[in-house]
Amino acid sequence: MEDTAMTDTVTVGQDEALIRELVDARAAALRAGDPAALVATYTKGAVLYTLAPPLGSVGADEDGYRHWFGTFEGQVDYEVRNLEVEVSGDLGFCHSLNRLSATPLGMAEGFDLWFRATLGVRKVDGSWLVAHEHTSTPFYMDGSFKAAVDLKP
Amino acid sequence: MEDTAMTDTVTVGQDEALIRELVDARAAALRAGDPAALVATYTKGAVLYTLAPPLGSVGADEDGYRHWFGTFEGQVDYEVRNLEVEVSGDLGFCHSLNRLSATPLGMAEGFDLWFRATLGVRKVDGSWLVAHEHTSTPFYMDGSFKAAVDLKP
Repeated sequence: MEDTAMTDTVTVGQDEALIRELVDARAAALRAGDPAALVATYTKGAVLYTLAPPLGSVGADEDGYRHWFGTFEGQVDYEVRNLEVEVSGDLGFCHSLNRLSATPLGMAEGFDLWFRATLGVRKVDGSWLVAHEHTSTPFYMDGSFKAAVDLKP
Repeated sequence: MEDTAMTDTVTVGQDEALIRELVDARAAALRAGDPAALVATYTKGAVLYTLAPPLGSVGADEDGYRHWFGTFEGQVDYEVRNLEVEVSGDLGFCHSLNRLSATPLGMAEGFDLWFRATLGVRKVDGSWLVAHEHTSTPFYMDGSFKAAVDLKP
């Protein structure tokens, strides 16, 4: 029993490391402005709840990312903080507070946006992929309904 | 091998059913305005990304829910749509589009708010609990930074 438990722990540790590598690879793809590398981290039917409308969509859109990268001066910066990973077998989820820093085309100044990111991940043919992504800011319930884009972790 | 695979499928099916019961129980607690029943569905150290600021917090707050229920006329209504559940061993995640309908105290009219909900769930001593919750609306990236509280699934 003890041996089994130890083996399980090692396996979980390895898979947690692989999921952290997936998160790192996604941040690197964002910093590099590489839509193909980003889209390659998703399962085909991934359910996406993104920062911008709609409420939800299915499947990562390479052209959409390409267009989005093109709306900024140069490259974006991306940071992942407070990443916590849970894993069991071929399934896991993780959450973190992420920073996107970028300068919209034609703007004199850039922005730093901190938001929450949750990923549901699945191991497919030995590789961890994003089966579900949920990114958001909260919003102010003071009657303004403004997105809380000024928060810091 | 076939027997093992069948057993696994049955187990996953049972756990998926239990996670769906957890989601139902949470909706029932919200409709009943029962903060204790709601808080009982979380692990102690659950990481929460809620509709309102802050970005994140740890542990469900019974007094906070009690206060929140008290800001509405009568009881709230709550609906869970498009629920999808993934489970492996003692871990799972699920996502859905949820509707909260309520009338704030002193307001003539109520609101219907559709938002995205992701739960990371963990089986603790045989019971499925919420280890991570992420609820949000997207926001309009048209310069207004308004929360998109008018979307429907």
